[in-house]
Amino acid sequence: MNENFTRLLIGSGESSPEIRYLTGISTPDDFICIEHAGVVTALMSKLEISRARQVAKPGVAVLPESDYGTSRSEIIEKTAKVLNTDCFEVPPSFPLGLAEKLRSAGIKLKVSEQDFCPGRLNKSPGEAAFITSSQRAGEAGFARAVEVLQESSIANDKKILWNGTVLTSEILRAEIDCAILKHGSLPTGTICAGGIQSSQPHNAGSGVLFAGTPIVMDIFPRNPETGYWGDLTRTVVKGKAPEIVSKAYAAVKDARDTVKENITLGADCAKLHQMAENILTKHNFRTGISDGEPFGFFHGLGHGVGLEIHEAPRLSPRSNAKLNGGEVFTVEPGLYYREWGGIRLEDLIYLSPEGSVNCLTCAPDFLTIE
Amino acid sequence: MNENFTRLLIGSGESSPEIRYLTGISTPDDFICIEHAGVVTALMSKLEISRARQVAKPGVAVLPESDYGTSRSEIIEKTAKVLNTDCFEVPPSFPLGLAEKLRSAGIKLKVSEQDFCPGRLNKSPGEAAFITSSQRAGEAGFARAVEVLQESSIANDKKILWNGTVLTSEILRAEIDCAILKHGSLPTGTICAGGIQSSQPHNAGSGVLFAGTPIVMDIFPRNPETGYWGDLTRTVVKGKAPEIVSKAYAAVKDARDTVKENITLGADCAKLHQMAENILTKHNFRTGISDGEPFGFFHGLGHGVGLEIHEAPRLSPRSNAKLNGGEVFTVEPGLYYREWGGIRLEDLIYLSPEGSVNCLTCAPDFLTIE
Repeated sequence: MNENFTRLLIGSGESSPEIRYLTGISTPDDFICIEHAGVVTALMSKLEISRARQVAKPGVAVLPESDYGTSRSEIIEKTAKVLNTDCFEVPPSFPLGLAEKLRSAGIKLKVSEQDFCPGRLNKSPGEAAFITSSQRAGEAGFARAVEVLQESSIANDKKILWNGTVLTSEILRAEIDCAILKHGSLPTGTICAGGIQSSQPHNAGSGVLFAGTPIVMDIFPRNPETGYWGDLTRTVVKGKAPEIVSKAYAAVKDARDTVKENITLGADCAKLHQMAENILTKHNFRTGISDGEPFGFFHGLGHGVGLEIHEAPRLSPRSNAKLNGGEVFTVEPGLYYREWGGIRLEDLIYLSPEGSVNCLTCAPDFLTIE
Repeated sequence: MNENFTRLLIGSGESSPEIRYLTGISTPDDFICIEHAGVVTALMSKLEISRARQVAKPGVAVLPESDYGTSRSEIIEKTAKVLNTDCFEVPPSFPLGLAEKLRSAGIKLKVSEQDFCPGRLNKSPGEAAFITSSQRAGEAGFARAVEVLQESSIANDKKILWNGTVLTSEILRAEIDCAILKHGSLPTGTICAGGIQSSQPHNAGSGVLFAGTPIVMDIFPRNPETGYWGDLTRTVVKGKAPEIVSKAYAAVKDARDTVKENITLGADCAKLHQMAENILTKHNFRTGISDGEPFGFFHGLGHGVGLEIHEAPRLSPRSNAKLNGGEVFTVEPGLYYREWGGIRLEDLIYLSPEGSVNCLTCAPDFLTIE
């Protein structure tokens, strides 16, 4: 924090991780938040003020926005007068439209050059526990999926049959997501993609699931009370796996586990990505582009997880980050080919400030389900 | 659209309704979108490009961002050169940090003064059908809650008992949310607040539910494929309702139904809010502030629903909007008192371009469940 500036944010607690981090308040609509002389103030509508007072982090002042004005710019201009300042430091995401209104009213805005909430990168044990709790909900979802696939049989045409009907991505996803809900977290777009659909990393999956092809399950629940996410991916095959799928699974597992063994304080995130890529290549799985469509390993090795599902640090070829301790991040190499589908295996890691590597994922590893 | 400007947006399809509306693509991470000479172009990462090509709206060009550069500002600067322009029109939400980088590289940005996607306000029949589909999922959730409460019994200490255990907000919410999932939509923060908790409109509810006090259920699922929301609120009491709760229920229902009868082309949104407020006052329910906490009817009467859960038009005292036909919006008066809790009843309305008023909500109205 630059002490010469009062800090100003606007956003909803649901979409703005900074606002949620600073205030603890989550709302569907935007509100204004000011940090001045170390005190965080949230300016709330009548609709939210009573609840906001109850859920706000200790020390956060919750005041009625209607005492300051009706429009956003009015409220901020009045606040500036009350605080006797004409300068605010704002995050890079601050909306340009509002910035121009404020500047034309004589308010100075300076975009923060450092991270606006540097504490978000280095998780406290309490934050790691919140993430772990969401991760457990995701694991309960995966366990339910495994149960469903164990109970299933295989029809002559290779369709998977369960509970008297043909199993689809939609049915399997609903089973996973209900298990997540019963563990107190919210599913947010669970991926359950079978066959060729699994060759697109973010294809959510739809339609009939078949035996003998990969089913990628990427499960990322959010706890609605804490706002923290979990993130888990496993890939399974019902029945016998084709040889190429088994080989790809072994390669991805080797890449994930080798990277996990090489996580240390000071590790370079781009080099960890490169390590995974090298291992996949060593296993004879190529990465490239064919007819304008990428194949092989074409996404980053991992990303931070916290109040955002994708946040710092990024583990990718272009990342400048080094691990300093306190980060929670995924390690999730994958291989994707239009010919047979995809494999992705994702674990969640908490590197403690002292350098111990804690895997927050407890889901088991196996490819085939009889 | 101002024809002198090429339009520029950045955001994720998940958080930016404009980007989703223009491209049809939904992603967890931000991407750049350009509209030039009537053609919308989405610049995608390798991770998303193959899927984006499949899900993009007809006519949207999907190109690899890596052909243009690595950083966001690089990609936009290169695009400007390719299009032979140095001016972009951007929405008010465009991030200030990126705007300053682009301006220092000589790119001109003009914040749009009109609505960036005016078509979003006036829903097509297809959009109304998407919203209705999410609404049906919410109604399935409400029907499940009613079933649970019908199956419940009342203990001597007034706790509600169900399925061999004490019924809590968490259990009832999980039952509602599982029903939503099985109807193909995602629950997003279902409110299930009993007793005094129901006096805070956005309190999600926690802990034991009791007979004889209001249970507010506000259910707003989103279809993950279309991105459109539904929104539904009902309030029920298990067992006998206290007289004040029955009177408040009758008042809120009168306000909701009278407003619904007065929706016409050209109706003034602020006046509809005032009409609801007058009816509640006529029923002897006061609105005000006591010890800094609001009581009575202290939120807007309603809001538009579409690719955002809260969007235009706003039906509130400060709204300047008039209804022009094509809007989908809620009518949801409520009364909230710390002494006994809250009542809210919310229906979803589609005012057709020809002026017919279609209620998209099919959930029944009743206060008590034996």
